[in-house]
Amino acid sequence: MGKTLEYSGSTLGKDLFVGKGKPTRRAYGFDEIALVPGSETLDPELCDITTTLGGHKLEVPILASAMDGVVDVKVAGIFGKLGGLAVLNLQGVQTRYANTEDAYNEITSCDKSSFVTVMQKIYSKPIDESLIAKRVEEIKAQGVVAAVSVTPNMAEKYGPIAKEAGLDIVFVQSTVTGIEHRSQSGEASLNLESYCKSIGLPVVVGNCVAYRTALELMETGVAGILVGVGPGAACTSRGVLGIGVPMATAIADCYAASEVYAHKHGKAPLIIADGGMVTSGDICKAIACGADAVMIGSPLAKAKEAPGRGYHWGMATPSPVLPRGTRIQVGTTVPLEKILNGPADVDDGTQNLTGALKTSMGTLGAPDLEAMKDVEVIIAPSILTEGKVYQSAQNLGMGRI
Amino acid sequence: MGKTLEYSGSTLGKDLFVGKGKPTRRAYGFDEIALVPGSETLDPELCDITTTLGGHKLEVPILASAMDGVVDVKVAGIFGKLGGLAVLNLQGVQTRYANTEDAYNEITSCDKSSFVTVMQKIYSKPIDESLIAKRVEEIKAQGVVAAVSVTPNMAEKYGPIAKEAGLDIVFVQSTVTGIEHRSQSGEASLNLESYCKSIGLPVVVGNCVAYRTALELMETGVAGILVGVGPGAACTSRGVLGIGVPMATAIADCYAASEVYAHKHGKAPLIIADGGMVTSGDICKAIACGADAVMIGSPLAKAKEAPGRGYHWGMATPSPVLPRGTRIQVGTTVPLEKILNGPADVDDGTQNLTGALKTSMGTLGAPDLEAMKDVEVIIAPSILTEGKVYQSAQNLGMGRI
Amino acid sequence: MGKTLEYSGSTLGKDLFVGKGKPTRRAYGFDEIALVPGSETLDPELCDITTTLGGHKLEVPILASAMDGVVDVKVAGIFGKLGGLAVLNLQGVQTRYANTEDAYNEITSCDKSSFVTVMQKIYSKPIDESLIAKRVEEIKAQGVVAAVSVTPNMAEKYGPIAKEAGLDIVFVQSTVTGIEHRSQSGEASLNLESYCKSIGLPVVVGNCVAYRTALELMETGVAGILVGVGPGAACTSRGVLGIGVPMATAIADCYAASEVYAHKHGKAPLIIADGGMVTSGDICKAIACGADAVMIGSPLAKAKEAPGRGYHWGMATPSPVLPRGTRIQVGTTVPLEKILNGPADVDDGTQNLTGALKTSMGTLGAPDLEAMKDVEVIIAPSILTEGKVYQSAQNLGMGRI
Amino acid sequence: MGKTLEYSGSTLGKDLFVGKGKPTRRAYGFDEIALVPGSETLDPELCDITTTLGGHKLEVPILASAMDGVVDVKVAGIFGKLGGLAVLNLQGVQTRYANTEDAYNEITSCDKSSFVTVMQKIYSKPIDESLIAKRVEEIKAQGVVAAVSVTPNMAEKYGPIAKEAGLDIVFVQSTVTGIEHRSQSGEASLNLESYCKSIGLPVVVGNCVAYRTALELMETGVAGILVGVGPGAACTSRGVLGIGVPMATAIADCYAASEVYAHKHGKAPLIIADGGMVTSGDICKAIACGADAVMIGSPLAKAKEAPGRGYHWGMATPSPVLPRGTRIQVGTTVPLEKILNGPADVDDGTQNLTGALKTSMGTLGAPDLEAMKDVEVIIAPSILTEGKVYQSAQNLGMGRI
Repeated sequence: MGKTLEYSGSTLGKDLFVGKGKPTRRAYGFDEIALVPGSETLDPELCDITTTLGGHKLEVPILASAMDGVVDVKVAGIFGKLGGLAVLNLQGVQTRYANTEDAYNEITSCDKSSFVTVMQKIYSKPIDESLIAKRVEEIKAQGVVAAVSVTPNMAEKYGPIAKEAGLDIVFVQSTVTGIEHRSQSGEASLNLESYCKSIGLPVVVGNCVAYRTALELMETGVAGILVGVGPGAACTSRGVLGIGVPMATAIADCYAASEVYAHKHGKAPLIIADGGMVTSGDICKAIACGADAVMIGSPLAKAKEAPGRGYHWGMATPSPVLPRGTRIQVGTTVPLEKILNGPADVDDGTQNLTGALKTSMGTLGAPDLEAMKDVEVIIAPSILTEGKVYQSAQNLGMGRI
Repeated sequence: MGKTLEYSGSTLGKDLFVGKGKPTRRAYGFDEIALVPGSETLDPELCDITTTLGGHKLEVPILASAMDGVVDVKVAGIFGKLGGLAVLNLQGVQTRYANTEDAYNEITSCDKSSFVTVMQKIYSKPIDESLIAKRVEEIKAQGVVAAVSVTPNMAEKYGPIAKEAGLDIVFVQSTVTGIEHRSQSGEASLNLESYCKSIGLPVVVGNCVAYRTALELMETGVAGILVGVGPGAACTSRGVLGIGVPMATAIADCYAASEVYAHKHGKAPLIIADGGMVTSGDICKAIACGADAVMIGSPLAKAKEAPGRGYHWGMATPSPVLPRGTRIQVGTTVPLEKILNGPADVDDGTQNLTGALKTSMGTLGAPDLEAMKDVEVIIAPSILTEGKVYQSAQNLGMGRI
Repeated sequence: MGKTLEYSGSTLGKDLFVGKGKPTRRAYGFDEIALVPGSETLDPELCDITTTLGGHKLEVPILASAMDGVVDVKVAGIFGKLGGLAVLNLQGVQTRYANTEDAYNEITSCDKSSFVTVMQKIYSKPIDESLIAKRVEEIKAQGVVAAVSVTPNMAEKYGPIAKEAGLDIVFVQSTVTGIEHRSQSGEASLNLESYCKSIGLPVVVGNCVAYRTALELMETGVAGILVGVGPGAACTSRGVLGIGVPMATAIADCYAASEVYAHKHGKAPLIIADGGMVTSGDICKAIACGADAVMIGSPLAKAKEAPGRGYHWGMATPSPVLPRGTRIQVGTTVPLEKILNGPADVDDGTQNLTGALKTSMGTLGAPDLEAMKDVEVIIAPSILTEGKVYQSAQNLGMGRI
Repeated sequence: MGKTLEYSGSTLGKDLFVGKGKPTRRAYGFDEIALVPGSETLDPELCDITTTLGGHKLEVPILASAMDGVVDVKVAGIFGKLGGLAVLNLQGVQTRYANTEDAYNEITSCDKSSFVTVMQKIYSKPIDESLIAKRVEEIKAQGVVAAVSVTPNMAEKYGPIAKEAGLDIVFVQSTVTGIEHRSQSGEASLNLESYCKSIGLPVVVGNCVAYRTALELMETGVAGILVGVGPGAACTSRGVLGIGVPMATAIADCYAASEVYAHKHGKAPLIIADGGMVTSGDICKAIACGADAVMIGSPLAKAKEAPGRGYHWGMATPSPVLPRGTRIQVGTTVPLEKILNGPADVDDGTQNLTGALKTSMGTLGAPDLEAMKDVEVIIAPSILTEGKVYQSAQNLGMGRI
């Protein structure tokens, strides 16, 4: 048991125990932290939010998740032109169907009870390898950086095909990625270090949450790591598997690894916070905790251009034995441009994400993303208290809870 | 008062006080913890979830609670063949009625207001000792391990009868079991040490929650201890008696005792977490906190084969003076096989419990249950925040809370 | 500011700060604690719950609050015969009206909007001093201990009248009682020490919450102190005045004072927890935190015999300038006997309070109230989590929150 | 990162971390604290609640927020005569429209969806400088202290005009104020020190939240500082920008600065808590945490005389690119006099704010505001527990949550 905390490379909270002899520590989510302004402020226009991933400069440090309801070829083009980076799921609808129209129709029109079955059927169609090259070419044709996501076991097969077609960045992504994976067949799982060298492209890998894992992944030569495993409290990973780390802590832990790495190597891979961000405030917090960029899904699934047509679904849903994630109707609101760069029509943090980030940075006196990581973070839970329930009810014009 | 913390064998949290001079410590429930993935992962198929209780190997480390709505003879057979172990309540409907049909009819068809009275009446019928042997024989006839639960005061009377009929494991179970019990009549309460020797069968005893009690119970020669007293926050024991210990802490405390015991004796009795688990995620957490197996009731009461026909009720309900526990309509969903071994049709952690456990272990890099006890556990409360209420409301298609 | 913590006699939590330079500590309510069973259990029948107040032995350590909706002369008789002690409000309806029927009619039949006005009118009728003697005599005529409650400023006037009529115990009670009170007129406020000597009766004083205040009050020669100021989170005192101390901490603090006092004087005044207890579990917790007895209001307002006819209201409501407290419809359920001594028809901790207390003590291995104060108390918040909301909603047959 | 905590001048909570290497501390809101009575009490009439701001004595330590729905010329007169100080927004409706009737009509009659657009239009009308003088003169004509609020960039232009018209106190107010601001144009932002000297009027500046910032602002010669940034958990600043500090901690931190300043200079500027107070209890807590006075908006927007006619809206709403804050229907209840000085018709802490403050001070034994800052503050969260939800539901006559 003494192994436990050492394992995650953490010696924090050494006075906290689950029970006798079981050390633990407190982890925090976005809802539990807030940023503290100091003595300096500056005009939002002065705040530099650019970052660089694998040699590609991003005007906007926001990535669109490799989820079929969020990114298709068209979104990749629009989002890239707006300054962000959209990542296409290379093992989803886009590469299984030449014409994706029918697949999306089925997914978004079936009822709740048949959704899992429909998903299992649609994703049982084999991947058409010719579509891999086609999709990458279609993205490149729009003049933007092309990025796709593949699972570790398919990375060596599909990566080179996509590269041939002009791919710029490859994301090797599974729910949880460690440095070592054992499979039943005994065949060696993906060797990341070799892969990074052989593929000849910037590799982003994930997802991970722990300090030591992040450090080990960085040593393989990746350009970035995705941070986030089951962040939301309502997240299926947590209910089904008991697994999950609140984002603020996960990011701060991995950022600590990147600092150690940077101290040794000069420059560390990018920390990309992935999951659990629903408002611009969450994005500001993610960066203040140590992220260089963020990857978001549901906030973009609401866009007019989103292929999900107002629906958002997880990529673990089609699992034939243990479906996780579900389909949520997020609705369709405004164009991607308004979500990303405003102006905002609403005041809830779902529009003008970059404007909010710059305003937050200005208010906090942070001229760039690096400086944003140094702002004070406090623990300030937005716990639901009795008073707030009554107040909310009143504000909503309700006479009772 | 200084006695207090020493009593539970704990020196943790020595800086926490209820008030001046009243030391205390923080205890955690399943909702407040989460598991943290590390650097290694492995294929779920490689994960070994077997355990051994009293010499009987269990393919599935899940026990079905000795509750009349959960286990009857038929369920004992099915559940055993699926790899788990169902425990029959030897002082319930099964041994009071040769034909249990009418009793179940009454319990499940009465209305809420008459439920307590109905229960009191049904359980006032004396136990028919011939049925004890009959039920055990019926279970054995299905080719599975036979296990029954008796109360301490009836253990010496009913245990031998059941053993004669072929019983494999006896559970001696009261709400709370300590090593010493004083009764008004002055008659000696059950001497566990003698009982374990004389009965000639593996004995499982419970329920307990504290380190020292667990250690003392282990010294009596039992094969396993049940851990859990009033775990749920809404649990009646807590409202009526003020008693209860959140499960994560209770398990970790008793696991600490088993480690001490194993260090001394080579091998410790099994720690069986009992109560408060509703999802596969909870089961994963229970094992990560130190349990060797889990005992669950309500998740199985939903099974098509459950004798409760969609209802679940506590065994303290028929108390003539202080009824506790209530009847809950859980509904009837799918067969036991789907609940235990999947495939799951839903994504909420109520189906394919073993699949989820293996996937969790694989994600956490734990090849067997012993290794699972070493994964990092963090405190990560799934507290209901204002944001989450709004979000939930939105997800449910509600315009307001 | 350094004075702050010293003031309450506490040096606990010296590492906790509201902000820079403002030390504080965490206080706990009943909802946040639970009791932990240990190695011994005993039959509930063996548990002695008697206590002694001012020389009067109480079979039941429960007092009925001096509130007009809870105690009248008749209730005082019934409750006393059941073993408890009911305290009559000497400045309420009972002493303002010879025939109280009409007053109760008005209070319980007016609508919500006119309630404050009605109360202000009813309580503006002057006290009829002849009724003071009459009420005390009526209580004594039923063969029980007679106890009344007066405010500090009226204690010297009404106390002797009541004593003359046969009073046994006098409660001197204001919302908050300290050892020293300054009034505008300059006239000396009640000198408790002199009063205890002169009145020639056991005096119970309250309410207080802090260690030092409790100690100072004990030094005046009182027989008991009432502990509790604005305990509930929804309590009006907290919303209107910002004042309140969660009960578990308040009781433990005052109990610490009683231990110091007992160490010096051999025996300390009784600690009577007053407020915030709604279930038998709360009563068990109050005693485990250090209370010798409890005073409850709303749980008794539900009794068939309660003068409030299903309504319960606070005694600060009639204030002409700053009304606090409100009228709550608690409904009428069962006779006082069932509430106090069962048998219970329900399983929610509102009936058979003494049975539950004895069962709790037996489960915890505490043969008497003194031993009950030594059981382990853990911090185990019954926080409302997302999972629980969904679960509750499901249990209630609701498809959504 | 080590810089982080030093930055806010705090060395508290040095054992708390967001994650590895990211130190943090816990901040508290009004809902999480409570005040503890001690050994002394005094009659409320003896409590002195007066304070002095910029040489002007205030009978009531309550300021009305410079928000268009709360303060107009008429309210400034009434509120001043009642003993408080109302601050007029110098860049809102009052100085853009000679006749404000139509503007208020539009704001309060438009529907929710068009509100942001309507606000943007109304606030796009240029400020009429002649109205600045006019409004100040109208306030002065009522015989009260005249105070207005301007933004930092307009302070040098509008301040002198208002002074010329008889202004008494100028509030220089932006969402967040630090000592140094950099703007794109390179032009120097407002130099507070020079401004305080040149304007020849008491200057109040804000808002700030941190110890060091407060100290630096005090050194510029201001008469008071406003404390509070995004205090409410539901506050838009927190959702949109991730920024916010719970009030109890923000006030205590700034109070610590004022103590250091006073130790050096004899007397410190006033600490004015601004935001997040909805009840009299909150006001009591604000002062106990170290505030000399409070500034409130929504509690006054409910007044019969409020220009918002039952509506309340934030001043960041009209932002053309990043609207924050929203319009809330607070309803119209009673005259300002009843809200401020009672008598109260209700018991929820929204009326008779000064009566409640005096009663709280009397109960806590604090003869004046300075003494109130020394009362013990405990952490006592009014967390919503399961029990409370059921209880509330029951109180509201609801059969379910």
